[in-house]
Amino acid sequence: MKPLAITMGCPVGIGPEIILKYFASKPAFPAGMTPVVVGDPKILSRCSESLNIPATISLWTPGERLKNGVVSVFAPENLPALDPDCLGWGKPDVQTGKAMAGYIETAVSLIQAGQCSGMVTCPITKKALNEAGYNFPGHTEMLASLCQTDDYAMMMAGEKLRVTLVTIHTPLGRVPAVLSSDKIFHLIEMTALSLKNDFGISAPCLAVAALNPHAGEDGLFGDEEDRLIRPAIQQATEASIDVSGPFPPDTVFYKAAAGNYDAVVCMYHDQGLIPFKLLHFADGVNVTIGLPIVRTSVDHGTAYDIAGQGKADPSSLAAAVAMAGEIAANRLQ
Amino acid sequence: MKPLAITMGCPVGIGPEIILKYFASKPAFPAGMTPVVVGDPKILSRCSESLNIPATISLWTPGERLKNGVVSVFAPENLPALDPDCLGWGKPDVQTGKAMAGYIETAVSLIQAGQCSGMVTCPITKKALNEAGYNFPGHTEMLASLCQTDDYAMMMAGEKLRVTLVTIHTPLGRVPAVLSSDKIFHLIEMTALSLKNDFGISAPCLAVAALNPHAGEDGLFGDEEDRLIRPAIQQATEASIDVSGPFPPDTVFYKAAAGNYDAVVCMYHDQGLIPFKLLHFADGVNVTIGLPIVRTSVDHGTAYDIAGQGKADPSSLAAAVAMAGEIAANRLQ
Repeated sequence: MKPLAITMGCPVGIGPEIILKYFASKPAFPAGMTPVVVGDPKILSRCSESLNIPATISLWTPGERLKNGVVSVFAPENLPALDPDCLGWGKPDVQTGKAMAGYIETAVSLIQAGQCSGMVTCPITKKALNEAGYNFPGHTEMLASLCQTDDYAMMMAGEKLRVTLVTIHTPLGRVPAVLSSDKIFHLIEMTALSLKNDFGISAPCLAVAALNPHAGEDGLFGDEEDRLIRPAIQQATEASIDVSGPFPPDTVFYKAAAGNYDAVVCMYHDQGLIPFKLLHFADGVNVTIGLPIVRTSVDHGTAYDIAGQGKADPSSLAAAVAMAGEIAANRLQ
Repeated sequence: MKPLAITMGCPVGIGPEIILKYFASKPAFPAGMTPVVVGDPKILSRCSESLNIPATISLWTPGERLKNGVVSVFAPENLPALDPDCLGWGKPDVQTGKAMAGYIETAVSLIQAGQCSGMVTCPITKKALNEAGYNFPGHTEMLASLCQTDDYAMMMAGEKLRVTLVTIHTPLGRVPAVLSSDKIFHLIEMTALSLKNDFGISAPCLAVAALNPHAGEDGLFGDEEDRLIRPAIQQATEASIDVSGPFPPDTVFYKAAAGNYDAVVCMYHDQGLIPFKLLHFADGVNVTIGLPIVRTSVDHGTAYDIAGQGKADPSSLAAAVAMAGEIAANRLQ
């Protein structure tokens, strides 16, 4: 298997720190291959020195053998060369925005050229991305555009629980208007496919959460279960997907975490993320399903408030690298 | 301290079974006092025999000393005398509805007469209650009416997490329309008061969950945080309550469970119940705060599908009795 690419994310966020801490922890790399960092060696060096995280940082060019015990960095000349002395932790600017977008483009190119087997992304911020001239709401939309697909979804995955979300950044009151049977069906289908291809589960078993309390209590507390969710489940069942629901949201996650379901398809952001973060606060992984390339991400942000202070936790990055490795290996089967 | 009253709940649900299993487990009773069951001795006897749960069942009259090792039952003559041979498990009728409502009225009277220090309720169903001529949406509303108050709220309480809910059985899409600053403020106030008086926390620290993902992300994903929640928190702060928020819903429960907050005030049913049931599936307790009497409840239903089969778990009842005892003791301080 080819190595994974880790994008450095925002150069003044906690990305560089968690990368160095991750390598310093001497983890078992997927397929025994040292990952390559797509980022800026000077920024990583500054971080290593100022936070006292021991690291041997070395430039890498595609095709070259990756060395154990070394943080190999791919930094092609077209990326902005940042001057660490002119940058403050937690203070992104147009140059850092261009650089972090460049890391993403570069990693996608490496994968498309067959040099890497997948990518793991460290956090960026939408504001810096937009100010650098990249008009995407976030990471995932940019990746979908680079892969020329509209067919993707976010999965949050951990040892105990996997959730996918029909709506993401929708105000709570607008969720019912944004839901549709088509969207729910399509997400059930993408989730089942990802469980098979990415997670190697030959006969995945899915649950669908209801929208309303008590799953609507026979229509007393809302009709979206009958109007939107049941038809989608029916359609998926006819397509031979093992899926059931809609289940009362307050018990379905307990049952999924107990092993009854491989994933829960959720109607809105907090329905899925409240239970997910309760079980996987430090080791949760954000997986973009549906893309032709393998992509996982840490499930936290740039954390500008603690950037450069040595307080960042690399657990989510470690989990994201391990999971990207598993997904890449499963896709090769 | 006077003993607690346990109402038997629906006679053909799992109430009788969990009561007998609870007594058979020889638990440490609150203040060393055996609780009294308000219910039907014949139903309890049938349950004991058919499910093979050993029990010494004995009639009790107010004022009489409660005996150890005995399931003492208060069954005043005004309650319907049920004939176990004519009743099927999971099949409520008008008589069982009248009986279970009578247990509730009787327990409230015992407390109001100073014979009991509080009550713990086993599950009833709304349908049977209504068919018996009691037009309440549920247990809690009936108790509030018996106590002649409109000022009450539901708290779900466990070792790790306590949550209160501004809206309960509201369809998800209607939640924003039903919320108001007044309701949120009032619930913050009631929650703080209950933590002091009922839970003995001298300086309670509360968190308020936002309504929208990322707490609205500065208005991008909804404006209820600014329009409704922040003014309520401001008002509560001015009333010297230690309360903060609105916090992103997907992280506040993790922080509360880690000990940062004594309770989380939630905007809707599943926002509070998803994390609560994930942490306290078997041992969660439903506490009615704001009432002049002490009342806790199991956090499950009548479970007609498993009634009479010996499969019911008495853990929630055990937790509810222990918590009612603590609350009653704290109120005496």
